[in-house]
Amino acid sequence: MIKKVLIANRGECALSILRSARELGIETLVIYSKADANQSYIYLADEAICIGDKFSKDTYLNMDAIITCAKEKSCDAIHPGYGFLSESYEFAKKVVDEGIIFIGPNPEVIKLMGDKIQAKKLMEKIGVPVAKAVALDNQSDEEILKICTDIGYPILLKARSGGGGKGMRRVDSADEIFHSINLAKVEAKASFGDEKIFIEKLIEQPRHIEVQILSDGDKAIHLFERECSLQRNNQKLLEEAPCNFISMKLKEKLYKASLDCVNATKYTGAGTIEFLVDNDENFYFCEMNTRLQVEHAVTEMITGIDIIKEQFKIASGIGLSINQEDVKCSGHSIEVRINSVDPLNNFMPSSGRINFLFTPGGMDTRFDSAIYKDFDVPIYYDSMIGKIIVKDNKRLNSIKKLRRAIEETMIEGIKTNLGFMYALLFDVDFLKGRLHTNYIKDKEEVIINKMKEVAKNVHERS
Amino acid sequence: MIKKVLIANRGECALSILRSARELGIETLVIYSKADANQSYIYLADEAICIGDKFSKDTYLNMDAIITCAKEKSCDAIHPGYGFLSESYEFAKKVVDEGIIFIGPNPEVIKLMGDKIQAKKLMEKIGVPVAKAVALDNQSDEEILKICTDIGYPILLKARSGGGGKGMRRVDSADEIFHSINLAKVEAKASFGDEKIFIEKLIEQPRHIEVQILSDGDKAIHLFERECSLQRNNQKLLEEAPCNFISMKLKEKLYKASLDCVNATKYTGAGTIEFLVDNDENFYFCEMNTRLQVEHAVTEMITGIDIIKEQFKIASGIGLSINQEDVKCSGHSIEVRINSVDPLNNFMPSSGRINFLFTPGGMDTRFDSAIYKDFDVPIYYDSMIGKIIVKDNKRLNSIKKLRRAIEETMIEGIKTNLGFMYALLFDVDFLKGRLHTNYIKDKEEVIINKMKEVAKNVHERS
Repeated sequence: MIKKVLIANRGECALSILRSARELGIETLVIYSKADANQSYIYLADEAICIGDKFSKDTYLNMDAIITCAKEKSCDAIHPGYGFLSESYEFAKKVVDEGIIFIGPNPEVIKLMGDKIQAKKLMEKIGVPVAKAVALDNQSDEEILKICTDIGYPILLKARSGGGGKGMRRVDSADEIFHSINLAKVEAKASFGDEKIFIEKLIEQPRHIEVQILSDGDKAIHLFERECSLQRNNQKLLEEAPCNFISMKLKEKLYKASLDCVNATKYTGAGTIEFLVDNDENFYFCEMNTRLQVEHAVTEMITGIDIIKEQFKIASGIGLSINQEDVKCSGHSIEVRINSVDPLNNFMPSSGRINFLFTPGGMDTRFDSAIYKDFDVPIYYDSMIGKIIVKDNKRLNSIKKLRRAIEETMIEGIKTNLGFMYALLFDVDFLKGRLHTNYIKDKEEVIINKMKEVAKNVHERS
Repeated sequence: MIKKVLIANRGECALSILRSARELGIETLVIYSKADANQSYIYLADEAICIGDKFSKDTYLNMDAIITCAKEKSCDAIHPGYGFLSESYEFAKKVVDEGIIFIGPNPEVIKLMGDKIQAKKLMEKIGVPVAKAVALDNQSDEEILKICTDIGYPILLKARSGGGGKGMRRVDSADEIFHSINLAKVEAKASFGDEKIFIEKLIEQPRHIEVQILSDGDKAIHLFERECSLQRNNQKLLEEAPCNFISMKLKEKLYKASLDCVNATKYTGAGTIEFLVDNDENFYFCEMNTRLQVEHAVTEMITGIDIIKEQFKIASGIGLSINQEDVKCSGHSIEVRINSVDPLNNFMPSSGRINFLFTPGGMDTRFDSAIYKDFDVPIYYDSMIGKIIVKDNKRLNSIKKLRRAIEETMIEGIKTNLGFMYALLFDVDFLKGRLHTNYIKDKEEVIINKMKEVAKNVHERS
């Protein structure tokens, strides 16, 4: 088993990794920026090192500093968490080259699946449906127009490196195409340091369904699917497991496609294969995330499997002890992400001191967050400050439990999206499961109005 | 379904009831003392009423005030929680006579099982082993000495009303008997307002095993057993479900005896049948608790059944929807009670303001407590301020998870028993499951020494 792990992440993600590591008896070293010097997990880790000032590039994205730190402190593994360097081929390669275990797949697999066009080609080759896509490199304007006409509008422009929805643009007609391409390239460059983009067929109002997999290289299993359609600007806001609104036949196809993908790439570790599903249950491989997902907890709730522990075990060379037939889906789990944003002000980030906090609890109610009263939420990083995850025997009861959990959560001093998320839980389309990736965009105003109506049930003062 | 419930309790107990009620869509009214005016759940309940100053007798034990409040506020049910009036025949009867639903069994059953001698007689009649016991009423000194000789020393003096270990005294020889009887009567009177006591055969180093049952009057089921041997002054400190250290054959006997007890008393609601088990797996009915137990959560963790919700459903007249064959035991759960006491000062109660708080979280980790940072822990009530409950696939992993959860719990400003409980989790006899009701007493010094040794892992500052 790995002896000492450097946790190259922050906030709730760092804390979650730390929890699983401690339970396995693995020593923990956390790195933190000066802006994060007040994080709770600094006191919980066996060791903690301040690695730089505040900006991500100097701290959580600072490959050399992180690797130097791991070597100096005799860590035999690095867990990258999600975001930051978790899908960086360059980082993973450097880590491995230094003889340190990178908790994730082989760097070459990160590279392969990180190139969205290459990944699609591979999936197409093994017989998995993909949305038609063409890389943009040196085509002439005329050629580009022809590609778009061939694919058929609406089309989607996407960054070739990176994910998380950054750099994505919808294009409805030829008039917009060149302007949009320029904008997409700028965004891709800013987000991923790589301006390469590609054109993809846009699936209208699709569900975003993803399959969690675990593989030790010899054996691969899936842990069922997650319904992640509720997104704003391509950022997930609420996730469920399982998805109640697609057929078992489709689910089986998605599991098979996911395991085929794992086998074709000789994938090891935990990973997620993302699909878009249209109204007729046509499905399209979208991308693979070669890392832990924010929303892994809903899968943990329905399967009882600690995914981070499995990552540690697989990376330690201990074979996967779970067989597919032992993985049972029990109940229904929902997660809401708590973001420090102001829904009434276009979801602008909110930072500052948390000056009152009551955290939700009770049966099958999980509050994953590193925050505490008097914690200063810094402005330098992602706005997600925690997650509330619940489980109950069926979806409606899970929704009721989530409402109750949000009602009892009191966060004062900063703005959060909890009031918005609470209002969403009363929306009839949500209740009926009529979800798609444009849902929040289409219904934002309706939900904001609902939010005012139900505000008395939610504690939000700042 | 019940429409509006008055929650006649405080702290974690009130909050837990409130959570289950809300999820069922039941309106909630909480009562509170002036000393509890800062409780978190006051803001969470639909309505809250200050019912008196501070002492229990004026507030949470004030039957008439509670009933008046329920009537004025149109509550159709009262949930008594645990402690306080939960096992008061008089209260239950008054509630029922006012046409309000008492969430618990029929008052007559409370009365019957509340008289420990009567309860034993009943159990003996239906063939359940009981520790030999004789009520003390007007016997002469000579008769008392003869009774004790017949039963055989050591004997135990116990209060005839009430439970929770109050008024219990061990007597090892005839020399001590009359002095001890006098003390036991004084304690019984002080604790339960009834000086009646009885003499019972003392089982040496027994395990305390209890069986959770649910019954709607037509159908009764058990939810397996809890191992509750770890007690200090007859107050439980740590509970587990299931018990790994008794045979399946014995478990089956305990389940059968418990269901026989339910049937013999026509019991309805949730209840617990407590047994003592000696080293040779002889078992003795001890008493029945006709209410929710503090430790109900470990059973919820292994069965997935929300016991408080079941109480509400049964009291609403909705039949028990769960069949025995559907109740599965999955994993191993452990609870520690967090008491505001100072282990290094003979567990003296500690009160004051919580001036730092970080609550534990993560997978299968439940923090049931109403406290928050800046909450003032009052001195007027029981010292229990919360519970940490964990579950994992097996006992050792559950212990590791509990250690991790305690390590990350930070409570400053008051003394707690968490350092002591943490040290206990490293004790070899605990790890091996060699538990009995005198365990803490016998090993207190050892654990306190261990506590100093492992103190660096636990955050306790005051």
